[in-house]
Amino acid sequence: MKHRATPPPTTPFFRPKQLLTLLCLALLGLQARAEEIKSPNGQLTLNFDVQQGGVPTYRLRYKGREVIKTSKLGLELKGSTSLQTGFTQTDKQTRSFDETWTPVWGESKTIRNHYNELAVTLTQPETQRTMRVRFRVFDDGLGFRYEFPRQPKLDYFTIKEERTQFALAGDHKAFWLPGDYDTQEYSTVTSKLSEVRGLMKSAVTGNASQTPFSATGVQTPLMLKSQDGLYINIHEAALIDYSCMHLELDDKTMTLESHLTPDAAGDKGLIQTPANSPWRTVIVSDKAGDILLSKLVLNLNEPTKFKDVSWIKPVKYVGVWWEMITGKGTWSYTNMENIKLDSVDFQKVTPNGTHAANNQRVKQYIDFAAQHGFDAVLVEGWNIGWEDWFGKHKDYVFDFVTPYPDFNVQELNRYAQSKNVRIIMHHETSGSVRNYERHLDTAFQFMNKYGYNAVKTGYVGDIVPLGHHHYDQWVNNHYQYVLEKAAEHKIMVNGHEAVRPTGLARTFPNLIGNEAARGTEYESFGGNNADHTTILPFTRLIGGPMDYTPGIFQTRISTFNPKNNSFVHSTLTRQLALYVTMYSPLQMAADMIEHYNQHLDAFQFIKDVAVDWDDTKVLEAEPGDYITYARKAKGKSSWFVGSTCDENGRTSKIDLSFLDRGKKYVATIYADSPDAHYEKNPQAYQIRKLNVTSKTKLTQLCAPGGGYAISILEAGK
Amino acid sequence: MKHRATPPPTTPFFRPKQLLTLLCLALLGLQARAEEIKSPNGQLTLNFDVQQGGVPTYRLRYKGREVIKTSKLGLELKGSTSLQTGFTQTDKQTRSFDETWTPVWGESKTIRNHYNELAVTLTQPETQRTMRVRFRVFDDGLGFRYEFPRQPKLDYFTIKEERTQFALAGDHKAFWLPGDYDTQEYSTVTSKLSEVRGLMKSAVTGNASQTPFSATGVQTPLMLKSQDGLYINIHEAALIDYSCMHLELDDKTMTLESHLTPDAAGDKGLIQTPANSPWRTVIVSDKAGDILLSKLVLNLNEPTKFKDVSWIKPVKYVGVWWEMITGKGTWSYTNMENIKLDSVDFQKVTPNGTHAANNQRVKQYIDFAAQHGFDAVLVEGWNIGWEDWFGKHKDYVFDFVTPYPDFNVQELNRYAQSKNVRIIMHHETSGSVRNYERHLDTAFQFMNKYGYNAVKTGYVGDIVPLGHHHYDQWVNNHYQYVLEKAAEHKIMVNGHEAVRPTGLARTFPNLIGNEAARGTEYESFGGNNADHTTILPFTRLIGGPMDYTPGIFQTRISTFNPKNNSFVHSTLTRQLALYVTMYSPLQMAADMIEHYNQHLDAFQFIKDVAVDWDDTKVLEAEPGDYITYARKAKGKSSWFVGSTCDENGRTSKIDLSFLDRGKKYVATIYADSPDAHYEKNPQAYQIRKLNVTSKTKLTQLCAPGGGYAISILEAGK
Repeated sequence: MKHRATPPPTTPFFRPKQLLTLLCLALLGLQARAEEIKSPNGQLTLNFDVQQGGVPTYRLRYKGREVIKTSKLGLELKGSTSLQTGFTQTDKQTRSFDETWTPVWGESKTIRNHYNELAVTLTQPETQRTMRVRFRVFDDGLGFRYEFPRQPKLDYFTIKEERTQFALAGDHKAFWLPGDYDTQEYSTVTSKLSEVRGLMKSAVTGNASQTPFSATGVQTPLMLKSQDGLYINIHEAALIDYSCMHLELDDKTMTLESHLTPDAAGDKGLIQTPANSPWRTVIVSDKAGDILLSKLVLNLNEPTKFKDVSWIKPVKYVGVWWEMITGKGTWSYTNMENIKLDSVDFQKVTPNGTHAANNQRVKQYIDFAAQHGFDAVLVEGWNIGWEDWFGKHKDYVFDFVTPYPDFNVQELNRYAQSKNVRIIMHHETSGSVRNYERHLDTAFQFMNKYGYNAVKTGYVGDIVPLGHHHYDQWVNNHYQYVLEKAAEHKIMVNGHEAVRPTGLARTFPNLIGNEAARGTEYESFGGNNADHTTILPFTRLIGGPMDYTPGIFQTRISTFNPKNNSFVHSTLTRQLALYVTMYSPLQMAADMIEHYNQHLDAFQFIKDVAVDWDDTKVLEAEPGDYITYARKAKGKSSWFVGSTCDENGRTSKIDLSFLDRGKKYVATIYADSPDAHYEKNPQAYQIRKLNVTSKTKLTQLCAPGGGYAISILEAGK
Repeated sequence: MKHRATPPPTTPFFRPKQLLTLLCLALLGLQARAEEIKSPNGQLTLNFDVQQGGVPTYRLRYKGREVIKTSKLGLELKGSTSLQTGFTQTDKQTRSFDETWTPVWGESKTIRNHYNELAVTLTQPETQRTMRVRFRVFDDGLGFRYEFPRQPKLDYFTIKEERTQFALAGDHKAFWLPGDYDTQEYSTVTSKLSEVRGLMKSAVTGNASQTPFSATGVQTPLMLKSQDGLYINIHEAALIDYSCMHLELDDKTMTLESHLTPDAAGDKGLIQTPANSPWRTVIVSDKAGDILLSKLVLNLNEPTKFKDVSWIKPVKYVGVWWEMITGKGTWSYTNMENIKLDSVDFQKVTPNGTHAANNQRVKQYIDFAAQHGFDAVLVEGWNIGWEDWFGKHKDYVFDFVTPYPDFNVQELNRYAQSKNVRIIMHHETSGSVRNYERHLDTAFQFMNKYGYNAVKTGYVGDIVPLGHHHYDQWVNNHYQYVLEKAAEHKIMVNGHEAVRPTGLARTFPNLIGNEAARGTEYESFGGNNADHTTILPFTRLIGGPMDYTPGIFQTRISTFNPKNNSFVHSTLTRQLALYVTMYSPLQMAADMIEHYNQHLDAFQFIKDVAVDWDDTKVLEAEPGDYITYARKAKGKSSWFVGSTCDENGRTSKIDLSFLDRGKKYVATIYADSPDAHYEKNPQAYQIRKLNVTSKTKLTQLCAPGGGYAISILEAGK
């Protein structure tokens, strides 16, 4: 990590006008005053003001255009005077900050963290309580949070609701998911904000656990586009020991307001001072690609305190998974129903013959991984309990250490490691968080003993104990506990059905993956919209990488499971593009290995593509329509391009000016055939090679629901 | 354990009349039928019948008198047809059982478990579901439970409410506590059942966590006395993986109905078949002493599965405790407020000078314990976190392993063990159950490392996460988890503020103590009623031993803490009697050691008295008025007598016919002086010795709020 020009936090950087304002306000007894700071490049302007009645407000402009109109700040407390009114500004601090840091893994080699900061101290004379609002204005957006210093009159308090407003300047186009305390696995709806209410009912599709809460509540990251072409993204950063934020839309005023996830007692946050809220983030640009490139959310998280990060490595993997997801095989070893773990002797029961996580099958995957240079093999359904794991609100549902009789933990790990491959552990919890915590130490010791170094966790179904929600403070603290315990055991975590990421991987880089959206599995449950992957990088991925599990070559599931009529809403080469467009340090080749063996030419891209990067460019982007990325492999001269488009198809035009000037490269283009179509003809693809340089311009067809992938290797290397 | 005459479970023992009935019912197609079984001695009669509409009912008579009139059985389910109506009886099994078993510790050397059993299988043809009701009729009462066999149509279900009725035969006198989901620490109210409603409001006194739920809800064990002299006790046995039962009184019909404790989601039980409810128990006799001697609750629990119980031993102990309870010293090391454990360096902060658990003080207690033959020293307030442990709903409130700087864990344990004394660990959880579970393994390993073999746990304040209750299924499962984990580490548990005991110590004999009622600590918080200890053995102690912490010699607290005007509502010699009347394998001499040094003559009784017994007799008893016990020390010829009386005082007349005939004994009588009085003159006592035999009769004054204690040692031994 390299710091440049980092003045101490208390150093002011007043400009003359501000000094004058300060002097005037000093004379006015530090009552109502307005503050203003700008982004380092001057294009963003943040105003803070305490309005009549002592109501704190803020406002954000980008190149003179309203992004967030004057909006209220504050929190409603339970059983105590709220922190919303009656404030006077009693102090302010400003500073400028500029550092460049090196992520353990990421989309670029280094990340610049550059902002101007304003911290205003607000005091309620009536209650003698103080809170601070800290604003950081970056070139690409705003972050702000509430800070509650340690103080005699505010030690412990309970949040009834956070009342942070985001007053939008118009009826923007929105890419939204229904607000829900328990799932993010909805299809994105693209509509005007004014249309949210009318579309909500149809947007709330079924899920294993779901708690929608209002007719206009939506999730973050919320992607917006104004009629005059401003791209705005609202999310949060550094969600720790706090409840996850949703946004409640007032569709008369187009004002969004924070709506926190309640716990089992209906409380929305138990706070002990000193404490900070997560950062509320507004990324803004008139270029869509700038949203994708923003590192604002990461920057607002704390640097990692891990001293040794050598055990954290990006992972490319295959897995015994898609055959269960599609219904060809089963997680469970038997067809028994209603079992209690301690009362079944699995050595004596009748196997169902469909259990996928068996020694023979796993060895096939290990062999395949070793042959093709993959790091790891995920195996789900290896441990006892899958017979009735789901939807029963069962407390003791898994023990995380006892394999089914046909899965030899010791032998399979030995076999894998002899071939330089790791098995990825799977801990499905079924939402029973206490049960998981009770077994966590033992489960991680078990992993250490057999050489597992990564775990995929799962939280399918309602949280047990009932009443809690996947995104409330108490459960968020559980995910955090697992993450920190895993770090103690040098284990990387890929959390599914957990709370959406908020850039925590900067602080805890062993959080190498999350689900927190509809992933590829939904292609087997009815399908994702064809434009799904043109939206996710603007929404879900703003918080952190997603274990999207791309790479399905046999998109027609009925070819191997006639009972399943679902199909993958993508052409084959778009599946390749996703390794570039859906950034993740953890990338799965999710299809069954037999399907890869049928298309080894296309599979070559998955083998070649990097999972860690020195540089990233957005070549084209429009949310809901198309995204084209170019990324440079970590420590190498090779580049990889990926492009995804919606159901309409398009012609992509890119130039390769990102390549080193003067160098010669060989590009291998994996592209849809002219007659390809995500539904009608998904496997029609062409592969061609050509010599390219930084002067090359390419025009490339994307079929409906299609895309292309290009590997660009330096010639002769 | 010795079994005698134990027929296999399926052996019927029909008498001719029953056979005839059975034949008739067989002809009627197994529809409505009435069953009847009697206790082994024939004095109790249990009837079971399925009434019109398929409603199961039962009825209990004692010597022909109604104990429980015809009462409904069943459970109301959530989101499913209830198990209350529409039943037909489809099977019945009867058997007789008689065994004598040896408890690890107890009131007698062996315990006879002798009952006749009826198990009726009930089927709802409409839902194709089956449940069984199993009745066991003992000479001293009835136990029955619901059994839910494994079956296709009833795998998982949620209890909305259990609807078990206890229809009483009259407006009995009741010794009751307000029903409450979170505390049992109320003063017992003695009134007619018809008066409960009018007295409820005043009965609900303040507590650190309390959730009373109705105007006529009361707790168990509920002690009743009918106008014609029947003593009836209603409680439950073997409360495992179920919610704790209260009793809701219909004061028009004098019918009690089960009322379970809800969890945070409002559910009253998540059940997976096969499963059983706890036993519902009705102990009955026309002699009050028979209630005290009943082992019905223990007998309804399963035998222990522990193979090695050598590590479980009764404990007599002193402790650094009363000085904090009375406000003379503090648990906390500093006077800081609002601390976070990880952010305070206790080596650098200013001590308050009142911290009681310091090396010097603890060594004084170790010396005292060693000198007087005590097994152990309890030390509370030894670990960091006491600065703001209480009432803040703090999650990470204690870590259970970090001592304050003035408490040297290693040195004090070494010192204690060098003198053959153990330090008793203290784990106050502040109700934060997840935090305790997270630290449990480490905390128990810590105990093993330093040689602690017993822990006092505490659950003061609301359960965290909020919404849960001290007695709901999820939290009951926590206590059970702690108990089982402790057993793995060979640790004995004394649980305070936990759910009331239900005889589980038969199965888990490391549960050597519980609080679950107002203990001696309340003598410092305003006082217990003078008749408190004449009631507890009829109520609270029916479920298991209580860590009542008697032995306060300096009953006027203001003599050492002028700010505390509370006083102990007992004479000094009554404090001695409690070691006999309040049975527990864990007995504390709770006063500060300086006070014992002022009365070493009286203290001799505490030194002498046993904590484990070969035999127990009730010499006199009337709930609310007086109790006199005689107990024979385990493996010895010596007996100990204790007598406690109410605020009126009385003359106790006992004969010593329980002594071995022909043997000569020396009795030492510790008794109130004639002018003694629990309030006005509590420390006036006399000690006299006399020679006694089995023919001796004694007349002994008990002062108001007083009592006496006698040690009877075989002459020449």
